[in-house]
Amino acid sequence: MYTKVKGTIDFLPEQSKKLTSLENYLKDVASLYGYQEIRVPILSYSELIHRSSGESSDIVTKETFDFKDRGDRMVTLRPEGTAPVVRAVLENKLYTSNLPLKLFYSGPMFRYERPQKGRYREFSQFGVEVVGSNSPYMDAEVITLATTIFKSLRIKNFRVRLNTLGDDDSRNNYKVALKEYFKDKLDLLCNDCKKRYETNTLRILDCKIDKDNEVLLNAPKISDYLSDKSKEEFEVVKSYLDLLHIPYIVDLKLVRGLDYYTNTIFEVELVDENDNSISQAICAGGRYNNLTKMLGGPELGSVGFAFGIERLSEIIDERVDYSHKIFAQFIPIGINAKMHLIELMQEIREHGFSSEMNYESLNLKGHFKSSDQNNARFLIICGDDELKDKKIRIKDKVQDTDDLIDESKLLEYMLHRIRCNRDCETCDGGCDEN
Amino acid sequence: MYTKVKGTIDFLPEQSKKLTSLENYLKDVASLYGYQEIRVPILSYSELIHRSSGESSDIVTKETFDFKDRGDRMVTLRPEGTAPVVRAVLENKLYTSNLPLKLFYSGPMFRYERPQKGRYREFSQFGVEVVGSNSPYMDAEVITLATTIFKSLRIKNFRVRLNTLGDDDSRNNYKVALKEYFKDKLDLLCNDCKKRYETNTLRILDCKIDKDNEVLLNAPKISDYLSDKSKEEFEVVKSYLDLLHIPYIVDLKLVRGLDYYTNTIFEVELVDENDNSISQAICAGGRYNNLTKMLGGPELGSVGFAFGIERLSEIIDERVDYSHKIFAQFIPIGINAKMHLIELMQEIREHGFSSEMNYESLNLKGHFKSSDQNNARFLIICGDDELKDKKIRIKDKVQDTDDLIDESKLLEYMLHRIRCNRDCETCDGGCDEN
Repeated sequence: MYTKVKGTIDFLPEQSKKLTSLENYLKDVASLYGYQEIRVPILSYSELIHRSSGESSDIVTKETFDFKDRGDRMVTLRPEGTAPVVRAVLENKLYTSNLPLKLFYSGPMFRYERPQKGRYREFSQFGVEVVGSNSPYMDAEVITLATTIFKSLRIKNFRVRLNTLGDDDSRNNYKVALKEYFKDKLDLLCNDCKKRYETNTLRILDCKIDKDNEVLLNAPKISDYLSDKSKEEFEVVKSYLDLLHIPYIVDLKLVRGLDYYTNTIFEVELVDENDNSISQAICAGGRYNNLTKMLGGPELGSVGFAFGIERLSEIIDERVDYSHKIFAQFIPIGINAKMHLIELMQEIREHGFSSEMNYESLNLKGHFKSSDQNNARFLIICGDDELKDKKIRIKDKVQDTDDLIDESKLLEYMLHRIRCNRDCETCDGGCDEN
Repeated sequence: MYTKVKGTIDFLPEQSKKLTSLENYLKDVASLYGYQEIRVPILSYSELIHRSSGESSDIVTKETFDFKDRGDRMVTLRPEGTAPVVRAVLENKLYTSNLPLKLFYSGPMFRYERPQKGRYREFSQFGVEVVGSNSPYMDAEVITLATTIFKSLRIKNFRVRLNTLGDDDSRNNYKVALKEYFKDKLDLLCNDCKKRYETNTLRILDCKIDKDNEVLLNAPKISDYLSDKSKEEFEVVKSYLDLLHIPYIVDLKLVRGLDYYTNTIFEVELVDENDNSISQAICAGGRYNNLTKMLGGPELGSVGFAFGIERLSEIIDERVDYSHKIFAQFIPIGINAKMHLIELMQEIREHGFSSEMNYESLNLKGHFKSSDQNNARFLIICGDDELKDKKIRIKDKVQDTDDLIDESKLLEYMLHRIRCNRDCETCDGGCDEN
């Protein structure tokens, strides 16, 4: 027996319907905010991913799917969308007109993580990227879009966790202070953090192992090292969120796991009645002003976020019914009626109504079972007698009726039934002529 | 400068919009025929792909992206959807209820082919798979669905190329006859065909190099080796297509490039006014009764097809405009108006109308340019004076009007404008009060 690859998942029809419907919804909401779709390849040159995520990042050291293609090129399955989208913006020179560019993407990402509930090695992300704006208003708008998604999906208990890493000067000063602070405390940190001290000191603050360590809790705060400009910009972001009543807290320890973030960074999480965090980040993002230059393009202020689609799908409290349903089931009794009903069924399908026929040689009971499994509303039955008289028998499972009608009236009859929603004899619809 | 991987492509906003709209359309049409979506991983164990496509197939010998993951598992990026979907059906035991299963999928596939126009190493396929039906009526229905897609996309010049490979007995007898026929003619065949003679004789008929070779043209025909049952079933398929006026030709040389096909196989191609083929297959499929057993499951008669989304997208003759458009552009004059318009804009967005503001400190001309680039219909302007009076200035670019209205009437005004489509003074809409 063949199995799926470890850490991947199959989505069966009901789950698939929910995911596809969610993706389409996210695309629609992003369009309201002026975003346009971009589709970039899953295959990326490894250099792009390694350079943008950072050679020392967890993603690159532990999680990428890297391999050589048949042409001996080092390629990586994209672990996230930002670097490939920014690469596409630069390669296609999209920045030469109409800035800011507001782009969204949706599709599979790949990370070799320890498989656990809701976390897969192949998963889908929906994200937006604004390229070519330095305005802190845009940071706030991006956060607003993220929270609009939560609100409109009727997820009420969300909260934004917000911080700023400041501009380059602020961040560099802060890094110096952190290095100085941690210098004689390395023994108190985990092994990964010891490495982080050398490669990317900021990330120590993000450590999941050391997160309650006193050494971390007492570390210098970025807020004390921000330039005036960075402070002002952060105030704009907060005012915007205040204006629109978006719930947030400032978390001075928030740093995010990728090398390219600058200025505003944020996550959206779920909270309980007492405002305690009860989830990891469902959505995460921030500003990344240095990435375009790092990738060989001009300096373009940029900001974005990404949602994990599967994670988001799991927390939606929906009453939508994604089970299979069919409008009409065609039930032939005998071979002549079969060919005749095939023609009728095609006509109904071409009118936009989902229809089914079980082609196996079943008896009536077998056909009824098949209709039940398809959740069919109308059962359309035809045997030799009906065929001769150009009639068909039609059962409406919703209104619990059973009629013999002219076959030429079939569509009209069904349309009337779904519009009228009452018993046929009581009204003037097309069907009561029969 | 970083580039996309050779053979892959970026789809910029207009193209992306077209592709996404096409994919959603295909899903809708498949739903009319009773199909449900299934989402299976891109990552597959190599063994699944190699076994199902055939170790000697072009796909496996030349085109797969195979590599070892960080856990030393041999994995392959799926080159097609059938084997992964059938694997999912078997692994999740979907066949234990309600047969036939009617499934569709849509997503990226990977083949290391020579890049050329419209053919990429990473491309999208939409396909359907019916699992658990031996009925030739189902073969015909699957073909009907494929042609419905062409018709409803207003592609008129399509034609089905049809053949049957017969059941196992028919095919085995035919293979013996082919072996015997080609035995002393190997010197006249290309090198690949010499190999095919040993590994899969049928595929010689499919050779692109030898296709006009007399030796091939004079080879035995499958039609002479079909069992009575296979002949009868093929007649059913043809009668169904005749009944629904679906244009097809029987092509006795059609064999398809994968090992798992049996019985009915088909392609859909484009033809010119003289019914000459003018394209390669846009859609291809057939019956594959041996695959489920080959993959370790029970014997389940199956049939399906796949479309290349990018190929299909290129041949659609559409008048749809996929360019970027925005409903309302908000234009603040000064910092106070900016914060105020942000609130108004959020309200309009939450009512489902796409809206934009350029947050940079622009003058009016700059804002107008930005609105033009966004193709905005309404321009909503507010400065300190308007702010004081709770008014806004609104320009409708479609009806070429310019009004000063109460800001509380904004939504009503715009709704009226789009509904009424006449100059405001001539009607009783909400806007003419101002």
